[in-house]
Amino acid sequence: MGDILYPKMAVIGCGLIGSSMIRAAREAGVVGEIAVADASPEVLKRVHALGLAHHVTGDIAEAVADADLVVFAVPVLAMGEAARKAAHALKPGATVTDVGSVKAAVGEALAAALPDTVHLVPGHPIAGTEQSGPDAGFAALFQKRWTILTPQAREDEPYLEAVQRLSDFWTALGANVERMDDRHHDLVLAVTSHLPHLIAYNIVGTAADLEEVTQAEVMKFSAGGFRDFTRIASSDPTMWRDIFVANKDAVLEILGRFTEDLQALSRAIRWGEADKLHELFTRTREIRRGVIAAGQEVAEPNFGRGRDKDHH
Amino acid sequence: MGDILYPKMAVIGCGLIGSSMIRAAREAGVVGEIAVADASPEVLKRVHALGLAHHVTGDIAEAVADADLVVFAVPVLAMGEAARKAAHALKPGATVTDVGSVKAAVGEALAAALPDTVHLVPGHPIAGTEQSGPDAGFAALFQKRWTILTPQAREDEPYLEAVQRLSDFWTALGANVERMDDRHHDLVLAVTSHLPHLIAYNIVGTAADLEEVTQAEVMKFSAGGFRDFTRIASSDPTMWRDIFVANKDAVLEILGRFTEDLQALSRAIRWGEADKLHELFTRTREIRRGVIAAGQEVAEPNFGRGRDKDHH
Repeated sequence: MGDILYPKMAVIGCGLIGSSMIRAAREAGVVGEIAVADASPEVLKRVHALGLAHHVTGDIAEAVADADLVVFAVPVLAMGEAARKAAHALKPGATVTDVGSVKAAVGEALAAALPDTVHLVPGHPIAGTEQSGPDAGFAALFQKRWTILTPQAREDEPYLEAVQRLSDFWTALGANVERMDDRHHDLVLAVTSHLPHLIAYNIVGTAADLEEVTQAEVMKFSAGGFRDFTRIASSDPTMWRDIFVANKDAVLEILGRFTEDLQALSRAIRWGEADKLHELFTRTREIRRGVIAAGQEVAEPNFGRGRDKDHH
Repeated sequence: MGDILYPKMAVIGCGLIGSSMIRAAREAGVVGEIAVADASPEVLKRVHALGLAHHVTGDIAEAVADADLVVFAVPVLAMGEAARKAAHALKPGATVTDVGSVKAAVGEALAAALPDTVHLVPGHPIAGTEQSGPDAGFAALFQKRWTILTPQAREDEPYLEAVQRLSDFWTALGANVERMDDRHHDLVLAVTSHLPHLIAYNIVGTAADLEEVTQAEVMKFSAGGFRDFTRIASSDPTMWRDIFVANKDAVLEILGRFTEDLQALSRAIRWGEADKLHELFTRTREIRRGVIAAGQEVAEPNFGRGRDKDHH
């Protein structure tokens, strides 16, 4: 057990990420009292039944009162409204963070809603499964995964201390911590996460609309690569809708490049340019070797810890 | 141990699939003597060292002499040439099959090269990993996976018997066997396997070309979804080049639909049509539930048995 970093932590939104943070923080012994607020009565009931928090409420202001760390773990587009509800009840000097997958838009929404008396340090743990809800969470979710913090451009000592403390908190939860500019974060994640999800959603949708191939056939022969895409494309719809709306510019930029490249690839297939295909496929294989080499510091995604893990 | 179905089996091309067939057939006890031919001296050396076959040679005709079952397990575009080299040495009444991921083009190439005296039954085991070569094979590769046979339009008793025997052979190796029209096979696989691979190759290539995001960052934060794509995109370049050339029509047809859908999705993001996004993401989640429900008969892909399996 580590030292208590935050005597009271409030988690606003207790889904996969929020509930995993609570479990991990308790296991690490770095928080004292825990309060949870959630808009869903069903979630509150489950949080209560799971014994995750000392205080479980539908009222955000009630949950954040007196908290030293407030974590907004709601969908990206719901952050601003949640922060507005919390604002008047926040303790001066409290650290406020979030776990949103988009950082520039969320950072702006939070900054606009919060009083100057708190330390806002936006964050994003790059971890998850295709599951949702408080029952899906687990303490090891953040182990050896990256959490990116995108602190504000402030240099005052109390703020820098708050950033360091939050970094220590994530380290105690098992994560590797990196600090980054929020716009750069959004571009990096557009490539490594948002575009892959968009593509997966799209390919599963395309397959579902085919007339010549039945849904049953697609499922039956999905082990050929498609199955990976159905898993990615089963992630929480609201969470992902919000990400694409909030990170529109970076996603469209990367999507534009992807589409151009795909058209070139399509043309190479149409004209039977076998050498061009072979060259690309060889190059991507090399990149995989790079990912493997970087694997000492990067763990596998948590995908597969979910519903069908026993098939592995 | 089952009954010997083929006193002598010849495997032409001893990579991941060929070597796995040998291992599985020996374990099942359904073949007697085994001969291997391969164009690569390095592969022959490994096959010899691994003790996979009784007879190891660079000469295809030598390997197929006297064989009751001949399996062509070379890249799709190399099938015709391999069959031409084998043709004069094939035993009358022998069964000839292949493991190519494209069936119409390969079936035609084999039929054109082979004498009428043999029974040609094209096949495709839907199994694999991102690894290649004889060392990567293992006996359990086909367990609970589908093998599709695309027999010719022949109704004579000896041919039907040959088809049934090959079906029994695959069943003995642990596979579920399905018979299908070759063109329909090519369309189904274009959706469930070829397009997913093409997309994965493309996205990894796009990411590698970005100037604003470093390769190191892409690798570091790849757990967000990208990592799955790098794994798929590390499959054997020659095998996949050949698949896209040989299954051009079906791949371009499916790719065209995918691109149309992606453009609609891109437009929905640009105009902030959150409801449209949510609707698609909800629908794809339902499809995943269907895949899971079909999971009793479909095992997980073999991906992950490879290099970095210990990260799971």
